[in-house]
Amino acid sequence: MALFVHKYGGSSVADAECMRRVAARIKATCGDSNQVVAVVSAMGDTTDDLIALARSVNPEPDEREMDSLLATGEMASSAVLTMALQALGVDAISMTGRQAGIRVDNTHLKAKIETIDPSRIQRHLKQGKVVVVAGFQGMNAASDVATLGRGGSDTTAVALAAALHADRCQILKDVEGIYTANPRVVPQARKLDEITYDEMLELAACGAEVLQSRAVEFAKKYNVVLEVMSSFEVKPGTVVRQEVADMENVIIRGIAADKNQAKATMRALPDTPGVAATIFKQLAQANINVDMIVQNVSEEGYTDLSFTVPTDDLVKTRRLLEPLGKSLKAGGLHFDQDIAKVSIVGVGMKSHSGVAYQMFDALAANGVNIDMISTSEIKISVIIRAKDADKAVRVLHDAFKLYIVPEGSKPNVRPMAKTAQAAQGKASPKARKAGKPTKGAKAKKA
Amino acid sequence: MALFVHKYGGSSVADAECMRRVAARIKATCGDSNQVVAVVSAMGDTTDDLIALARSVNPEPDEREMDSLLATGEMASSAVLTMALQALGVDAISMTGRQAGIRVDNTHLKAKIETIDPSRIQRHLKQGKVVVVAGFQGMNAASDVATLGRGGSDTTAVALAAALHADRCQILKDVEGIYTANPRVVPQARKLDEITYDEMLELAACGAEVLQSRAVEFAKKYNVVLEVMSSFEVKPGTVVRQEVADMENVIIRGIAADKNQAKATMRALPDTPGVAATIFKQLAQANINVDMIVQNVSEEGYTDLSFTVPTDDLVKTRRLLEPLGKSLKAGGLHFDQDIAKVSIVGVGMKSHSGVAYQMFDALAANGVNIDMISTSEIKISVIIRAKDADKAVRVLHDAFKLYIVPEGSKPNVRPMAKTAQAAQGKASPKARKAGKPTKGAKAKKA
Repeated sequence: MALFVHKYGGSSVADAECMRRVAARIKATCGDSNQVVAVVSAMGDTTDDLIALARSVNPEPDEREMDSLLATGEMASSAVLTMALQALGVDAISMTGRQAGIRVDNTHLKAKIETIDPSRIQRHLKQGKVVVVAGFQGMNAASDVATLGRGGSDTTAVALAAALHADRCQILKDVEGIYTANPRVVPQARKLDEITYDEMLELAACGAEVLQSRAVEFAKKYNVVLEVMSSFEVKPGTVVRQEVADMENVIIRGIAADKNQAKATMRALPDTPGVAATIFKQLAQANINVDMIVQNVSEEGYTDLSFTVPTDDLVKTRRLLEPLGKSLKAGGLHFDQDIAKVSIVGVGMKSHSGVAYQMFDALAANGVNIDMISTSEIKISVIIRAKDADKAVRVLHDAFKLYIVPEGSKPNVRPMAKTAQAAQGKASPKARKAGKPTKGAKAKKA
Repeated sequence: MALFVHKYGGSSVADAECMRRVAARIKATCGDSNQVVAVVSAMGDTTDDLIALARSVNPEPDEREMDSLLATGEMASSAVLTMALQALGVDAISMTGRQAGIRVDNTHLKAKIETIDPSRIQRHLKQGKVVVVAGFQGMNAASDVATLGRGGSDTTAVALAAALHADRCQILKDVEGIYTANPRVVPQARKLDEITYDEMLELAACGAEVLQSRAVEFAKKYNVVLEVMSSFEVKPGTVVRQEVADMENVIIRGIAADKNQAKATMRALPDTPGVAATIFKQLAQANINVDMIVQNVSEEGYTDLSFTVPTDDLVKTRRLLEPLGKSLKAGGLHFDQDIAKVSIVGVGMKSHSGVAYQMFDALAANGVNIDMISTSEIKISVIIRAKDADKAVRVLHDAFKLYIVPEGSKPNVRPMAKTAQAAQGKASPKARKAGKPTKGAKAKKA
């Protein structure tokens, strides 16, 4: 008997037809003796629709109220999936985040899970029930519902898998796994068989929308074996796991692009100690995630400070910086939404040099101008113009030969596409053993 | 300083535009110093849409899951109205039934409120906030959400008004008050200035959809002054209150029709003691509200038993009666959905005779056949064919001259319409002082 935590995203439970398909999938997983806890997102575009509704009555909705509103999407979804399971003769029960014992901190819209009391879920599992949990939410100390932020249902699933000591946490999606790049942008993108937690974290942080960073962090912390797989077909996906020795043979595992980025620049700031600390302390207190930071000296005694934030936080950032800019006597404020972040990620970077050069060279050769750069041990990110993002991803996928599949599999190499028309999931299913390039490919790198 | 409990139904909060209007109405009610608790239904057709969604995945959805699903409609609505209030600068907070301290019994879909702990609401009122409560729901002992049945938001509002010792509970609707009959069916229907709890109870039980019976019972029990009024215009509605002497001068206060009725007949039941008790005990245990019951002797030692139930309960009733019919050796089962109940209601009936005769005579003269009859001290109901329902209401409104307005007001008497095309709310706004017929009208009655 194994315990699986499944997570189904919004497009997997978009309508009654999808619900029936997911119910059948869960029933098949249960088989004779397996236990399943299913975490669901809101149906289809529900969350976006609710956000639009909120903004139509209030351009800046209160965060507590926004959470109360958004959480209803997952609650409804969990009840409907439970009904669909019962229609197939599967004993099942739905639970809200509160009922599932998920307690969160006092933040709204980006709450963090503090504790999970899985006893009620365990009681129902023992009774032979499938437990369907509303993702993306928990209850805080004020007895209010709070949501975990975009993609928070992944975090719910991983956290429950950890609390329940589940055998595996499976994230079922409308893609077959993690790809070397977004297949909608790069037709030659390959599905990976495996990826390390750290690589996945970098990719997620860099805009790969397949998994939420927090979910991967949770999985890494509690060593939850995570699998990203198709919700439509029963076949292996991409396993996210601890790094093992031979995974370093891959220099670049994948490429991500993030268009949900905005840049704020404070011009001609007096160059005195503590100015940056003042600014970023206030941004942190407002729960704004600052990503890349660049500081340049502009003229004597003055400095220019640029940083990027998620586009969603731009209004909040602007409201915070305007008075702050005045009090700090900044020469000017400038905001730019027309940017994108493109990143290459791979644990092999740790032991290979020249990767950054190769990246910048490929971009320059294709006329892509670099605005900001940031690196980590296993990642290089650049900020470029938004319009260049897709081209940059294709150029890099080609430059690092990520389309090359391992020996022993039929290759899925096609000439580089000039458009991003190819549908998602078009990568050859025969490329399942990909993830480790051939020796020939390696020799050409770095 | 006065405390008002407002209740807004689904059509009053159907979209963003409606939400803004309701928010403005609440802001106006708050004025300088009044307190408002607003109870809201789900937006527009949300509840019906959710029911349809549930049925599309499971023809007989589990009641606990149905409650979890339906309750999300009111939760979302309360958050959106709160945002709309905040957009107008009104300090406000939303609450689910659970957060509002509403504890219910363990029934689903028709849960009863057991206790209310209003302390959290009171705390927020003291802080100067408008509290927006999700109607129709509460939390049961299992920590699950349960709904109060159709129109349950009225009950939430009255129960909160009682628990908070509110000065008045105002039910704001898309009608101006309680009418002598449905104005969509009877164009001459008049708005009443006042009506007794008992009359309102009978009308509600007989299908007048303006207020839910349980809400009126609650109001009567706790002497909550109830006012049904327009959500679109600020003007007096119909006050529902204790009976005072001169209200008996009105023989018939109003007429109601209920098409949501189905008839079950068990034919040729062995006529032995305890048979009826067995049947109705099981129906009661299944929470099926049996309304009218008629028993006839069919042939020696056998009896026919007919009773009516809400159409919504027909599937459950059928499933219960089929095995029961076999075990009781009934000769046959018959179900009929093609019926309607038409009722006349008035406290004056207690002191006037001949009302029943006048009713049956008017129906007979217009070719309406009566199938079943049931009476109370202040009500007479008949079961007729569904297709005759509208005609019967018009015939009775005319026969009892309910269109006649009191002396001193300009009469709104028109010849009886042959169609039911007139829109609701067409009754003359000048008929506000109606409710007591002229002496001339009285002389012609009974």
